[in-house]
Amino acid sequence: MHGILLFAHGARDPAWARPFESIADAMRSAAPEQPVALAYLELMQPDIGSAAADLMAAGCDSITVVPLFLGAGGHVRRDLPQRLDELVRQYPGVRFDATPAIGETPQIVHAIATAALQLVNAP
Amino acid sequence: MHGILLFAHGARDPAWARPFESIADAMRSAAPEQPVALAYLELMQPDIGSAAADLMAAGCDSITVVPLFLGAGGHVRRDLPQRLDELVRQYPGVRFDATPAIGETPQIVHAIATAALQLVNAP
Repeated sequence: MHGILLFAHGARDPAWARPFESIADAMRSAAPEQPVALAYLELMQPDIGSAAADLMAAGCDSITVVPLFLGAGGHVRRDLPQRLDELVRQYPGVRFDATPAIGETPQIVHAIATAALQLVNAP
Repeated sequence: MHGILLFAHGARDPAWARPFESIADAMRSAAPEQPVALAYLELMQPDIGSAAADLMAAGCDSITVVPLFLGAGGHVRRDLPQRLDELVRQYPGVRFDATPAIGETPQIVHAIATAALQLVNAP
């Protein structure tokens, strides 16, 4: 089974996590057969290792990490690959890969541009 | 004239800024009559004060800040209001306001959930 691990930054304020939890919920509603876990780089739990373990416990032998970052800086280009390398070493029977940062996909650039104009110019 | 000030976090890696520049470009294409500036909280230039001055120099007497953050933590709830207060004091003839963080809008939650499933399950 192929699981999805959403990887977000984390913050001190618990309210920060709400959109990320909503994204995970929307994905579970749209694809109920596909396990979706949410993990944080720092300041929030679970971390990526715990979330990966949850997906494996749910039967996943393949896990794709989706970085929920708008821009791809050190967290996506350096921290995430380090953590993925650790997981690959720890769980040789599971296939891990990662997509680009979600903000780098053209449809998200377009969606944000559209939503920003709507927010600003709403009556 | 009503200007839009996109407010992003900033990062050490210049490549981090690409999606934000693409968002600003997409908005300028969609609404060529509306000035759009992009500013960063830290690590990148311009800062919010310089970007606001650019919008005013372009004739804006009203500026709406759109926080390009997925979650609203301390940067959106504390740092941004402090900077807006400074701008309001510095430029009493200009109206400033701010929208919620872009990631908190339902259409962006939906767009990210859809894009994430497409990225993971693309052939």
